[in-house]
Amino acid sequence: MKLVLVRHGQSIWNKENLFTGWTDVDLTEEGWQEATQAGELLRNEGFDFDGCYTSYLKRAVHTLDAILTELDRVWLPVEKAWELNERHYGALQGLNKAETAQIYGEDQVKIWRRSYDVKPPLLDIDDVRCPRIQEQYRNVQSIDLPLGESLEDTIARVVPYYCDVILPQMQEGKRIIIVAHGNSLRALVKYLDKMSPEEIVEVNIPTGIPLIYDLSADGDVLKKGYLGDPKALKAKLEQIAAQGKVAPPK
Amino acid sequence: MKLVLVRHGQSIWNKENLFTGWTDVDLTEEGWQEATQAGELLRNEGFDFDGCYTSYLKRAVHTLDAILTELDRVWLPVEKAWELNERHYGALQGLNKAETAQIYGEDQVKIWRRSYDVKPPLLDIDDVRCPRIQEQYRNVQSIDLPLGESLEDTIARVVPYYCDVILPQMQEGKRIIIVAHGNSLRALVKYLDKMSPEEIVEVNIPTGIPLIYDLSADGDVLKKGYLGDPKALKAKLEQIAAQGKVAPPK
Repeated sequence: MKLVLVRHGQSIWNKENLFTGWTDVDLTEEGWQEATQAGELLRNEGFDFDGCYTSYLKRAVHTLDAILTELDRVWLPVEKAWELNERHYGALQGLNKAETAQIYGEDQVKIWRRSYDVKPPLLDIDDVRCPRIQEQYRNVQSIDLPLGESLEDTIARVVPYYCDVILPQMQEGKRIIIVAHGNSLRALVKYLDKMSPEEIVEVNIPTGIPLIYDLSADGDVLKKGYLGDPKALKAKLEQIAAQGKVAPPK
Repeated sequence: MKLVLVRHGQSIWNKENLFTGWTDVDLTEEGWQEATQAGELLRNEGFDFDGCYTSYLKRAVHTLDAILTELDRVWLPVEKAWELNERHYGALQGLNKAETAQIYGEDQVKIWRRSYDVKPPLLDIDDVRCPRIQEQYRNVQSIDLPLGESLEDTIARVVPYYCDVILPQMQEGKRIIIVAHGNSLRALVKYLDKMSPEEIVEVNIPTGIPLIYDLSADGDVLKKGYLGDPKALKAKLEQIAAQGKVAPPK
């Protein structure tokens, strides 16, 4: 079985270095280009799919749209799942990462971004950023919707969705692509690669570069690797690792 | 119950006045704009949906994408169904309508375009245009896939899909939008408005203007009407009626 994971391209808030989480910001022009390039890489390697999964967030949905357009496969079925959304960053959503680092210190920001089980400051339930009062989650039970998540919390919703919904599809012979987010994809990588909490927090997933898993019939990893030019991959990873550092003085 | 129907915006082949049918051509820039305007009309009138249906063809899928982007509803579930595809124009697909009129006569073109039960010349089963050998229909039984359709044939696949799949969703309280094609929407209009074959062939559905049906719990029509400016509607209908006429000498 083959599984393809793609992290969405650059969003408007990535570019502005804000904590995004479940804030539904769109791709930048560069983000659309990254998505199209991901589609080109997949097309050039002859990839085809039977089913597509993405989150409720438009930066992921649009990345998948661009990939399917590039593959000439806009007719494929697409399932959107809130369970594949980015980690919910609670009350940090909308704050500038560099400013947050100046206020709380770079170490605290790194803890929030890179710890396994530390939650961000939680949202009030009447906060406009609270998914319990947002239209797109109107069919989801309130109790299931987070007010802010640690990576551990994100994993606790992504992995059951993968095991209950996606894995059985692959076991029926379907070729699946998942387009999602830095942390929801980390959840999958941790589960698939059987990583420890300490290991997964050090993993960065580059945007717009397809990550290919070869799996056994039981879902165990036989092989994994990124598509495309290793230099482009390295440059992207360095760029992501630099996020959250204190901005240099102007 | 409310049902919203939208015909996709201008496609590349609409613009070039070719018989399109199941040929998977994309929207023109103007087509994308029409789709966005349809979304604006729906947004301004406060429309919301629980489910979306479209065909396998990218001019319809992309029209729906543009509408959902405009409504800020890209997270809504979308079901793509080959049963909602345009009428299959058989061996006419790819021919210029004005040239076809010069060869066969304007009357024959009008018969092919506007008759109820006359099929176009059928495709050979090894023709590259034959859906039985096209990737996107690989999960559909060959016997169900047309080699060329009369409007009656199109109706015979659209209406059962509506009755079996879409109507039950509305009866569960879901608000539905269908983005499809001139003839697959005609099939629905004929069924909903209980029109005769003679009546439906005279009906033109304008591109990018939402058609709103108010239905009883049994699916009977209580009221219907187009959204937006009546002048824009009239201009679009005249433009569509002019298609298939012999091109004027240059």
